Amino acid sequence: MRWLQQFDKALEEGDSSAAANLFAEDSYWRDLVTFTWTIKTMEGRDQVAAMLESVLGGVKPSSWQLIESATEEGGIISAWIEFETATARGLSLLRLRNGLCWTFLTAIKELKGHEEWIGRRRPRGAPVGISAGPNWSARRDQELAEIGIETDPYVLIVGGGQGGLALAARLKQLDVPTLIVDKFARSGDQWRSRYESLCLHDPVWYDHLPYMPFPENWPVYTPKDKIAEWLEIYEKVMELDCWHSTTCTHASYDQQAGRWTVEVSRNGEERKVFCKHLVLATGASGFPNLPAIEGMDRFQGQLWHSSQHPGGDAWRGQKVVVIGANNSAHDICSDLAVNGADVTMVQRSSTLVARSSTLMEFALKPLYSEDALDAGITTERADLIVASLPYRLFAELQKPLYAKIREHDAEFYERLRAAGFMLDFGEDGSGLMLKYLRRGGGYYIDVGASDMIADGRIKLKSNVSVREMTENAVILSDGTELPADLVVCATGYSSMGDWAAQLISKEVADKIGPCWGLGSDTTNDPGPWEGELRNMWKPTAQEGLWFHGGNLHYSRHYSLYLALQLKARMEKIPTPVYSA
Amino acid sequence: MRWLQQFDKALEEGDSSAAANLFAEDSYWRDLVTFTWTIKTMEGRDQVAAMLESVLGGVKPSSWQLIESATEEGGIISAWIEFETATARGLSLLRLRNGLCWTFLTAIKELKGHEEWIGRRRPRGAPVGISAGPNWSARRDQELAEIGIETDPYVLIVGGGQGGLALAARLKQLDVPTLIVDKFARSGDQWRSRYESLCLHDPVWYDHLPYMPFPENWPVYTPKDKIAEWLEIYEKVMELDCWHSTTCTHASYDQQAGRWTVEVSRNGEERKVFCKHLVLATGASGFPNLPAIEGMDRFQGQLWHSSQHPGGDAWRGQKVVVIGANNSAHDICSDLAVNGADVTMVQRSSTLVARSSTLMEFALKPLYSEDALDAGITTERADLIVASLPYRLFAELQKPLYAKIREHDAEFYERLRAAGFMLDFGEDGSGLMLKYLRRGGGYYIDVGASDMIADGRIKLKSNVSVREMTENAVILSDGTELPADLVVCATGYSSMGDWAAQLISKEVADKIGPCWGLGSDTTNDPGPWEGELRNMWKPTAQEGLWFHGGNLHYSRHYSLYLALQLKARMEKIPTPVYSA
Repeated sequence: MRWLQQFDKALEEGDSSAAANLFAEDSYWRDLVTFTWTIKTMEGRDQVAAMLESVLGGVKPSSWQLIESATEEGGIISAWIEFETATARGLSLLRLRNGLCWTFLTAIKELKGHEEWIGRRRPRGAPVGISAGPNWSARRDQELAEIGIETDPYVLIVGGGQGGLALAARLKQLDVPTLIVDKFARSGDQWRSRYESLCLHDPVWYDHLPYMPFPENWPVYTPKDKIAEWLEIYEKVMELDCWHSTTCTHASYDQQAGRWTVEVSRNGEERKVFCKHLVLATGASGFPNLPAIEGMDRFQGQLWHSSQHPGGDAWRGQKVVVIGANNSAHDICSDLAVNGADVTMVQRSSTLVARSSTLMEFALKPLYSEDALDAGITTERADLIVASLPYRLFAELQKPLYAKIREHDAEFYERLRAAGFMLDFGEDGSGLMLKYLRRGGGYYIDVGASDMIADGRIKLKSNVSVREMTENAVILSDGTELPADLVVCATGYSSMGDWAAQLISKEVADKIGPCWGLGSDTTNDPGPWEGELRNMWKPTAQEGLWFHGGNLHYSRHYSLYLALQLKARMEKIPTPVYSA
Repeated sequence: MRWLQQFDKALEEGDSSAAANLFAEDSYWRDLVTFTWTIKTMEGRDQVAAMLESVLGGVKPSSWQLIESATEEGGIISAWIEFETATARGLSLLRLRNGLCWTFLTAIKELKGHEEWIGRRRPRGAPVGISAGPNWSARRDQELAEIGIETDPYVLIVGGGQGGLALAARLKQLDVPTLIVDKFARSGDQWRSRYESLCLHDPVWYDHLPYMPFPENWPVYTPKDKIAEWLEIYEKVMELDCWHSTTCTHASYDQQAGRWTVEVSRNGEERKVFCKHLVLATGASGFPNLPAIEGMDRFQGQLWHSSQHPGGDAWRGQKVVVIGANNSAHDICSDLAVNGADVTMVQRSSTLVARSSTLMEFALKPLYSEDALDAGITTERADLIVASLPYRLFAELQKPLYAKIREHDAEFYERLRAAGFMLDFGEDGSGLMLKYLRRGGGYYIDVGASDMIADGRIKLKSNVSVREMTENAVILSDGTELPADLVVCATGYSSMGDWAAQLISKEVADKIGPCWGLGSDTTNDPGPWEGELRNMWKPTAQEGLWFHGGNLHYSRHYSLYLALQLKARMEKIPTPVYSA
């Protein structure tokens, strides 16, 4: 491939401007920890040139090779490429338009000399020859007994949900001593504690964890207890070191020593653990937002946050008000309604609704489905395809999809609107994924509750907010009084950054700034434009502090890049972080 | 492909002799439950003709199609084929020599209209729309609580080892109500209870269970506690209905009602369970053979069977005699020796020894390895390739392999012989797999103990048997007195058929005859020639009684054929069993 030869030659000759000239003016180079040692999108030829000028000498890229023949569609040529740097092997997805690069993804795959213990490199299991001493299981028990007590972990992960577990599994494969501290008694308990009817809203093909895919008879939309059990199994099979029933109470960084002192309460016992790196994997859903409502302390009924709501079967014949109109609010309303409660949803502002089946058909099927698998698009490849779309373009690329979805489900949306439901498709019509990336919410993936709103089984008050509460009712901003035996605040969660303030200090939290969000200057995602999720899986302004989170897809895919950054630091591989 | 067209045409026209004429005189057609509704090898053109003459009208084979291009090697053309019968879909592996069929495998894949709930047919998980009622986990709990109490299982499996679990998983995918009764408190306890150093002697690629392969970081030779944990996980993830801590005490068949009454003791409570089919999956290793040795009751030391031996670390500095020279004897001796015991192995007759690494390189690598996977040979395909080799040919095909192994490890074998160890390679030089198939033992897969015998760390007395025991010693047939603090009888297990005698009756056991073995007329495998493993995974002389067992490979692969036979009976699909 001519482009690749020219690019390779320019890089080899250290000629940044020749290399940059192979990119279109309006091109995008997204780098995942190969050239930049961070996660960064260079937007436009000038940024590409500047980055290359700065890093090329150290990176020493080479061995660019097509993995398979390039393909062409609609004037765009796509090519899968492998390459190396001085310290790593990487994968690349290149898109050419008119002979110039339009989009370019470079993603680290592994560090040379530190490959994972999988496939041909899997452990032997039985010892070579015969030796005395503890067997596999005894050695495993010993490791778990010693870490955090006799031995310091290199990485401490706060939070043992899917994010923490996936990252710990990757670090295990890289021989990075890692301890998870998790407040629950068992992995998966976060899921177990939720309302009974909860199922994942994303399909199985999108949800695999690293190394150990779900079996082929796994349901499409995993019920909550089944995902909980899988996480518990995953911890065991991956042999992760996890302290359960353990709360992290405080962490402080010793700049001199370059290490964290993490204070935890383990089964009620106060302990200190020392580590080089601290990962907050407490999740976007760790910090419930419970609004302060005037008069809420005089309310005589039950009131709780959606995260505390156990299910609807105890509320038959009773009056329930659910404040909020996103995923949890819908799930909780429908569960209450089918269980015979008299339930009213209070919608303050518009919500993006997309039917699960339509999303599957139009958005996910090309990448995450049996069809995709048949077409050779494995989960790993699908993840890279998603990652190859720069966030600036992503909104534009999603708009036609949502135009199609609106047309396909026009009658459905009409019925919802007729019931008074306030709909949107994102401020710029770019749909659900962008809402997820910009603000982590503002949508409902419909699995049936919308029909119940349309036909009145779930009552709706929209375009109103909650003014106050009385002994037995919720008073809305339009003066409506909603009598209530139970009020559920499905009012979401606060930012991951709040964890830094709570666990470390306000100073550190301020230094880091917000987590998640792209800087799109839309609701709940203030500018300036970042072009990447803020502070996620990449170096932050606080040395040794990292953030990890997101749905199963993000936990799976980006845990790789975070794990390799940590491993490189442990091995003292130079990791000069490029910042424009 | 011309041969296939002619074959298809002959079958379509019901012309058995035209079809049989496409087979060489010395050809083999191995059928797994498609034409014969049993597991049977037709040897030679006449047997092929007779079978077709008998069954062709009912089977209605059709739609023979190459799955991929045929390949040629050394004058043999091989082709993968799919086909249908009136009731099923099948896979076939054909080998042609000089234009005629040399070997032909026909294997059932699925019953039409009763396909498994996997891949595109996997369950949805979340309900379509919203409905009240129990969630996934509550429904699962209810099913488990009711089976055997409120509802009769269609199949009852005695034994929850890898065999019982794999079969139950397959039956679950076919909606066949199935109850496992297992004497242990947890799945995997059979493995947990064994000596500490035990690891699987077969590599990971050979050992996968159905639907849920081991993850890619799983060790090559699985340590016993890890396989135990995996079985426990497998039971949960596959949602199998299993009564633990339950012993089957008696089973009787009511010919009139066509059902079994199975008496069990569940946590000490006596219960009766009714089922249509009873599967004995108690394993080849269920019934320890403890020899009656003169004077053994006056022996003052410890004496136990290898299955009861916990590991060597308690026997430092003590004298141990291990009776036997097969796998367990070697493992136990080496474990004792490295733990500082003074251990002597007593070898009565010759043993086949093959080094694990050499077996991997020469025997398994082409089919079960990362290399095989890279070459497109999945586990499923490898299983069919193994199954396509008729047992009559198998011995011949294995001989050159063992000639190669003997040459490759000549120096190793020389050292063993020099230490007095009696070696064989099977009576006809056909090696380990044939010993396994003929008699289920008589070999050691070396992972290091042979070196310890060669260099004297494990003492050896060979070509002797045990004459008697005194208070503190074992007296051998040559008069040698071996002082002993512990005697371990690594004397193997008795036949699976013994379970039928114990659980049902001697009459039924006699009617059925021996289980396992080919009828090769070699040691422990009396004739007449059967050409298949006796009574395994196929109809027996006792209606509703089935045997299932073998290593992880056999448990995985043949559970499919047994499950489909049971499903066909449940659905009242005609299953006329062909017997020559």
